[in-house]
Amino acid sequence: MNYGMIMRVLGNLVLIEAAAMSIPLGISFFYQSGDTKAFVTTIAIMLAFGFLMSKLSVKNRYLKAKDAVTIVTFGWFIISMFGAFPFVLSGTLPSFIDAFFEAVSGLTTTGATVISNVEIIPKGIMFWRSFMHWMGGMGILVLTLAIMPTIGVGSYQIFKAETPGPVTDKIVPKMKDTAKILYTAYLGITIIETFLLVLGGMSLFDALIHTFGTVGTGGFSNYNASIGHFSSNYIYFVISIFMVASGVNFALFYDLYKGKFKNILANTEVKIYLLIVTASTLLVFANLNGTYTSFENALSHSFFQVSSIITTTGYSTTNFDLWPDFSKMILFILMFVGGSAGSTAGSIKVIRLVILFKLVKREIAKILHPRAILPIQVGGKMLSSDVIASVSGFFFLYLLMFLLGTLLVSLENVGIVSAASAVAATLGNIGPGFDFVGPTKTYAMFNSFTKCVLSIEMLFGRLELFTLFLMLTPSFWKKV
Amino acid sequence: MNYGMIMRVLGNLVLIEAAAMSIPLGISFFYQSGDTKAFVTTIAIMLAFGFLMSKLSVKNRYLKAKDAVTIVTFGWFIISMFGAFPFVLSGTLPSFIDAFFEAVSGLTTTGATVISNVEIIPKGIMFWRSFMHWMGGMGILVLTLAIMPTIGVGSYQIFKAETPGPVTDKIVPKMKDTAKILYTAYLGITIIETFLLVLGGMSLFDALIHTFGTVGTGGFSNYNASIGHFSSNYIYFVISIFMVASGVNFALFYDLYKGKFKNILANTEVKIYLLIVTASTLLVFANLNGTYTSFENALSHSFFQVSSIITTTGYSTTNFDLWPDFSKMILFILMFVGGSAGSTAGSIKVIRLVILFKLVKREIAKILHPRAILPIQVGGKMLSSDVIASVSGFFFLYLLMFLLGTLLVSLENVGIVSAASAVAATLGNIGPGFDFVGPTKTYAMFNSFTKCVLSIEMLFGRLELFTLFLMLTPSFWKKV
Repeated sequence: MNYGMIMRVLGNLVLIEAAAMSIPLGISFFYQSGDTKAFVTTIAIMLAFGFLMSKLSVKNRYLKAKDAVTIVTFGWFIISMFGAFPFVLSGTLPSFIDAFFEAVSGLTTTGATVISNVEIIPKGIMFWRSFMHWMGGMGILVLTLAIMPTIGVGSYQIFKAETPGPVTDKIVPKMKDTAKILYTAYLGITIIETFLLVLGGMSLFDALIHTFGTVGTGGFSNYNASIGHFSSNYIYFVISIFMVASGVNFALFYDLYKGKFKNILANTEVKIYLLIVTASTLLVFANLNGTYTSFENALSHSFFQVSSIITTTGYSTTNFDLWPDFSKMILFILMFVGGSAGSTAGSIKVIRLVILFKLVKREIAKILHPRAILPIQVGGKMLSSDVIASVSGFFFLYLLMFLLGTLLVSLENVGIVSAASAVAATLGNIGPGFDFVGPTKTYAMFNSFTKCVLSIEMLFGRLELFTLFLMLTPSFWKKV
Repeated sequence: MNYGMIMRVLGNLVLIEAAAMSIPLGISFFYQSGDTKAFVTTIAIMLAFGFLMSKLSVKNRYLKAKDAVTIVTFGWFIISMFGAFPFVLSGTLPSFIDAFFEAVSGLTTTGATVISNVEIIPKGIMFWRSFMHWMGGMGILVLTLAIMPTIGVGSYQIFKAETPGPVTDKIVPKMKDTAKILYTAYLGITIIETFLLVLGGMSLFDALIHTFGTVGTGGFSNYNASIGHFSSNYIYFVISIFMVASGVNFALFYDLYKGKFKNILANTEVKIYLLIVTASTLLVFANLNGTYTSFENALSHSFFQVSSIITTTGYSTTNFDLWPDFSKMILFILMFVGGSAGSTAGSIKVIRLVILFKLVKREIAKILHPRAILPIQVGGKMLSSDVIASVSGFFFLYLLMFLLGTLLVSLENVGIVSAASAVAATLGNIGPGFDFVGPTKTYAMFNSFTKCVLSIEMLFGRLELFTLFLMLTPSFWKKV
């Protein structure tokens, strides 16, 4: 492995994070919220660390698949570590495990919190927490759509028309182009949503916090009642729409910008995704019949919660843990769906489920025609058996991680629904679950072991499992 | 389709069932338990129906894959229908839906009951209920190991060394040979277990009831406390061992009989299966530390419950619903494991999970070696991508059926754990679940809609999904 280059890239990542932290520093200074010192200290440590790392001698600048995997995995860990510092130093979360959980939850755009009363924490910390969502969302977009496929790592390349192999000399220009488009789309959506929320009566600070939580499909709020704090169907609707939009493959925003509407209409995943959102909203709405006073409120809450869970955001406008079982089961299933591939959403993703559905259909047809060759097509393109095996493997591993996590969390004896939904909500980068981790609760009451397990689940989910698992195999560390 | 031949086979099946019903008729006559008339009436109807069907003119005797699927699916339905008659006619279960549920549960070797107090039902009915387990277990063995692979239908052929295509003229001798071996092994195990249970102090009647429930991996008992009625670690141990044995591929008993111990030791599935049983027992035992007064009792209950759930039998010696969450989660996960392929156990089966595990391992290795061809091997044999796709498809479909069922049952608002475990326990042909359907409860309190849903789940599980789904596709009914 190219350790020198790995260190340098990690060092640069920390420097970028230090730069990003200057924004909450400014906020804390502006509001005089008492957390200024925490940010100054953290930034100082990060600068020292970052400069040291980035000054290491590098023999060659080429990165192989192995190096990329190492950078991605360690990068996510290191950034979470430093991201946790301000929570500890400001006294918001004195335990480092709590602070690490909160930082991982922020950066992986999960939105599960261990802060019992979020309304009393300093403004700088409040901002940092949500800003991590925004950065994490951006990071995952650039990672999955620009960096990973170019290096030939990760499963996303299988969904792209062109599947570039590890052609090292072409990486940089291509990566930069894709990344630029993503930055622009991401920034554009952020500005529009912030504007619309301010228009609906939110303060600029609140609007930014909730925009960060929406476009990153994170879910941190600065109110204990989450979006329910605002009793406004306009705000519910705006956030719902932007949650749904943030669950769409960001490559489609480029098509939208270029006026290639045909591409968008021809996209199987986006069609099925919108169909699931619509069908689930209507089913929940029908099931909630009578729970809310007005027709409008019931529809608004249904649409909001469905959008929030399928996109793995995790905001809530109401305590959906009190909903009837049928609605809760729909939300629980949606926790395993997630948005589209190439969005900021977590979980399994619609395209994988579409492929698995088509596989089942093919297998049934095969009973009658055992010798026929029945290819599986998505969007007119034939899928290789490699792609199908990769998707099946991912699906099975996802469930294994879910079951293993649930087994470990169940040691706390909080009930199976609490344990299972806590794991589903962290592995899927969602945030709230049911029962003990319902939308009005936090993850604060879990012990340190469980918090570590759930932090790892969040990272596994965000890194799409395989990358992290790869590093656990001995052959990964063997010298070739 | 060869409707004439289909009708004839179905007619013969009903005649076989009528013959089988003469045994509980004899029992009811012997005990003068008041249910004699119910059996006589049912047998009369079945004889009339059976003779009528089997006398239909048949142009040719060849059965194609389509015909086999039709026979298997309708056969299971018709036999369940007639099997339900004695429950209704004797007044044990006045509602036909209840009686159908009980009969399906018996024949699919599930063991979920809607009879609240089983100790007061007539002896004939009691026997019939458990005898259905025994017949169902035998039926599934012959079906999956002898009939289906020879016709080229079903997914079991993939696990066999030779995968015979639809070679019509060779069916009969081959099928008969395999079936004979199975009958012998099944009957042998039945006799030995009955003998050992009588030796432990059970009456012959009780011994037969519980042997039927064990070797068929069914789980019906004639006591409300299930096996817990007998406070004897000897009986717990004997039943545990026979449950584990009934979850082993029955082809191995042939090897055992022929002295081919090498084959048994080389069998990957049986090794992993026994490993899962051992590991789960030890984990549950460790977790139960302190729950039971003696070391021996704790071990005995752990081994019993683990064997009972993994083999999808469903007997209980204790109210495991009161166990700590960790132990309950282990049992819940085992509900999705099932025994070995080619046994009387239901659920997903060990071999499929082994293949999926190997797939995951391969996919992880592939990240580093994207162009390498990494075959998946089981027992030294290379698996084709067709087999892997078929296993993946089955796994996904199984989970879909589980989620769809849970969604429908959740309309009853009995809690997600109750709904999910009821579906897992019926789809996996296990019997008891947790909470509202825990081992001390019955399925009686569900409404008719839920009972129908769960009956269908039992049939889907037993018929290994694809067969039933195939009949739901329009192309199945199209004339070629």
